[in-house]
Amino acid sequence: MSVLTNPRAERVKAVRALGRRSARQRAGRFVVDGPQGVREVLRFAPGTVVEVYVEGSAQGRHGDLIDAARSANLPVHQCDTAVMSALVDTQHPQGIVAVCRPVDVPVADALAAADGFVVVLAHVRDPGNAGTVIRSADAAGARAVILSDASVDLYNPKVVRSTAGSLWHLPIALGGDVPGLIAACRARGRRVLAADGAGTTLLPAADLSGPHAWLMGNEAWGLDEEIRGLADDVVRVPIHGHAESLNLALAATVCMYASADRATS
Amino acid sequence: MSVLTNPRAERVKAVRALGRRSARQRAGRFVVDGPQGVREVLRFAPGTVVEVYVEGSAQGRHGDLIDAARSANLPVHQCDTAVMSALVDTQHPQGIVAVCRPVDVPVADALAAADGFVVVLAHVRDPGNAGTVIRSADAAGARAVILSDASVDLYNPKVVRSTAGSLWHLPIALGGDVPGLIAACRARGRRVLAADGAGTTLLPAADLSGPHAWLMGNEAWGLDEEIRGLADDVVRVPIHGHAESLNLALAATVCMYASADRATS
Repeated sequence: MSVLTNPRAERVKAVRALGRRSARQRAGRFVVDGPQGVREVLRFAPGTVVEVYVEGSAQGRHGDLIDAARSANLPVHQCDTAVMSALVDTQHPQGIVAVCRPVDVPVADALAAADGFVVVLAHVRDPGNAGTVIRSADAAGARAVILSDASVDLYNPKVVRSTAGSLWHLPIALGGDVPGLIAACRARGRRVLAADGAGTTLLPAADLSGPHAWLMGNEAWGLDEEIRGLADDVVRVPIHGHAESLNLALAATVCMYASADRATS
Repeated sequence: MSVLTNPRAERVKAVRALGRRSARQRAGRFVVDGPQGVREVLRFAPGTVVEVYVEGSAQGRHGDLIDAARSANLPVHQCDTAVMSALVDTQHPQGIVAVCRPVDVPVADALAAADGFVVVLAHVRDPGNAGTVIRSADAAGARAVILSDASVDLYNPKVVRSTAGSLWHLPIALGGDVPGLIAACRARGRRVLAADGAGTTLLPAADLSGPHAWLMGNEAWGLDEEIRGLADDVVRVPIHGHAESLNLALAATVCMYASADRATS
């Protein structure tokens, strides 16, 4: 296997460029950086992997992933440290990177399940929050996650990393204005529960018995009053101490686990 | 009011040095950076504030805080942008900083309440995780938080910021080895519940009826088998999808809200 050693090679620059949203959209590709993500995409969506780059010194450490990629007939490029550092904008590259195709599904597909709960993120901008909510949604057993228009890009490297592999574990749909998404959820028989500090229904009293959708607002300004008015109920996580609020990812996780608990109890 | 304009002044350097743990320990001081923290310390523990620095251009924005500090007879120093940038190692200083004394309490005081639940963080190293758990503990109504030995410093600027003001909302104790803290909790009539992915009791089935302590492990390696063996029960947050786990702050928050729910239902 030949080793890539030129960090200025066109193919290396093309991967590096995928750190920018415009380049991702133009190429229809994004980058998965590090063994956790590469493992999960190879396991759950190998057909979306275009190619894998592995640093020479990391080959032993990532032998299982290289084998998995080769078994899936994927090109595996060996590179040196300079090329790995040029491929991704990470402080501590972990020696393996995959270039992948998007995995998002149409909203209708995300709403195909008739039971349980889904999560709609309305205008969530922070990459870490969005990724963490996807990870929690996976853990809590959500049927799908939908990111509205004006949300952070799902394929932003920080979002991908924060999902800890959950990006490939459940259907994720992108786009659509929030009122339209609320209507779509309701048309599929889901009650829409807006999670917001302005809610008058406390979470333990919320009706989580039937199919429902959790609507989570932006991390800084929550959900507009108009949007809250479109929901079937506005639910608040009780704050027992002096804290002003929980952050978005924590509030979403507490809400989703309440749904999961109610479903299994 | 005279305006501080020399970023190399000794007093400015002394505040800046408080970014380091050794300097904090030597001085018995730490820095609270930004209006949210300054507001909460002035409200809940004004006696621990030593002095306040405010940037000239931010005076209008922070008028209520300046008034509160002056009402508490605290020195308020006006400074220019260069001095504010020199005071704290923050990318976007928010124009107000307080130098404060520690607020941690002895372990015995943190265990003074006889009811509800407390949280023990065992060897938690990540500042964001530690701060976020303190914020969640506040929100979920924990009676206290205890950080074991070999944990991140409570007064690390990132911990302080991540608590979002909760640092001053509930008793927080520092230090002590984990077996000793488990014994101390039990001596005060608390069942000790270790939260760990290796647990065999699922969270919805855990006995949260009496006074208890949640023991949360390190973000990377969890709790040692030996430590788990000292707990009264080892409890696992159910993972419904394909996610490997929840991160520490999320798992802790789900556990604490289960305690809060059980207490109020």
